[in-house]
Amino acid sequence: MADNKAVIAVLGGTGHEGAGLAARWAKAGYRVVIGSRDAGRAADAAAEMAAKTGGDVRGLANADAAAAGEIVVLAVPYAGQKALANDVRAQLEGKILIDVTVPLVPPKVARVQLPEGGSAVEALQKDLGEGVRVVAAFQNVSAHQLADLDAEVNCDVLVAGDDIEARETVVQLARAIGITALHAGPLANSAAAEALTSVLIAINKRYKVADGAGIRITGIPDLA
Amino acid sequence: MADNKAVIAVLGGTGHEGAGLAARWAKAGYRVVIGSRDAGRAADAAAEMAAKTGGDVRGLANADAAAAGEIVVLAVPYAGQKALANDVRAQLEGKILIDVTVPLVPPKVARVQLPEGGSAVEALQKDLGEGVRVVAAFQNVSAHQLADLDAEVNCDVLVAGDDIEARETVVQLARAIGITALHAGPLANSAAAEALTSVLIAINKRYKVADGAGIRITGIPDLA
Repeated sequence: MADNKAVIAVLGGTGHEGAGLAARWAKAGYRVVIGSRDAGRAADAAAEMAAKTGGDVRGLANADAAAAGEIVVLAVPYAGQKALANDVRAQLEGKILIDVTVPLVPPKVARVQLPEGGSAVEALQKDLGEGVRVVAAFQNVSAHQLADLDAEVNCDVLVAGDDIEARETVVQLARAIGITALHAGPLANSAAAEALTSVLIAINKRYKVADGAGIRITGIPDLA
Repeated sequence: MADNKAVIAVLGGTGHEGAGLAARWAKAGYRVVIGSRDAGRAADAAAEMAAKTGGDVRGLANADAAAAGEIVVLAVPYAGQKALANDVRAQLEGKILIDVTVPLVPPKVARVQLPEGGSAVEALQKDLGEGVRVVAAFQNVSAHQLADLDAEVNCDVLVAGDDIEARETVVQLARAIGITALHAGPLANSAAAEALTSVLIAINKRYKVADGAGIRITGIPDLA
């Protein structure tokens, strides 16, 4: 099975959100490469993840991870998103880049503060150019829930992208780890998911949601 | 019961979304005033709504409706939002204004196109000044579902506002018509709900949802 599955590189794969996604893909039989600024740290995290999941996990410096991945996931804090993506631009050519970035602006992370012009990922796509197939997804999924590999994720994933085929690949990658994902329209529509994360943080505080609130889309005929 | 309930004026109350909300409040025992550009049209719609709901419904020109309402709802297309609110500014002083506006930009209504600076309602609050207690809500609720007064609305309402007491009033007004509403943070957080409407339109198209897709927030301890 795993032989037919794409190699997924997760840049920022030692962070909570990136590690949770990486571990779930590893467990599902994908070959996973964890990228980090520090190759040694990536290797350590990869060894631990391989033991935990029984999967095929390597750890490399971000640029090498981006080169090794057939599909690349960007899961770093907003402050580092642009610089890292530009650093590894050459390694992304022709590939699908799944951007998980939420434009949180500390300290007011429960307040929506989208960048001028709309969504953070649209600005990224402009920067990287059309040679990179940027898709936005997973911004609303609680890292806490991802970390427990057997726990159901109580959040639908809105998948936004201008490249419909790339978007469909990401929808399937989410479903492969048990997460319901939906085509949410063009990349510009990522603004909704990017903004929603701050709303969910506000809701977590107000309603004391320890595990992390999520969203479900209602009204859709069964997707199973 | 109805004597203790606020008078709710719905500007744009002859439109689909406004009429659906107005009818549900009328049915729940609130005194409702329908506002329209055309007082005659408002009166006709009010008579019809009173007959249908058994409620107390009047119809007036928008400015008179705004004057009569203790709480005012703005439910007009985005293109008319600012002008109407400014026209009736004097009648809004000290009141809660519930803005239902979604900044859709035809013809691409399935594409998120938030105004510069973020949410449409934040721009409105700036325009009207602090004397009006602006709260954003109901942007994601399908007018189709509102229209069937006995149908369950399959969508949680995100209520955003800087005035927390006003926000709580709106949360309760939603619950009074059987709709789950949640405190979603400051007015800026309305950007999420404003953007989500275009995503839901995109989902309605893609997944052929006739009744209108909605959202539910997951993970919150029972609100009932």
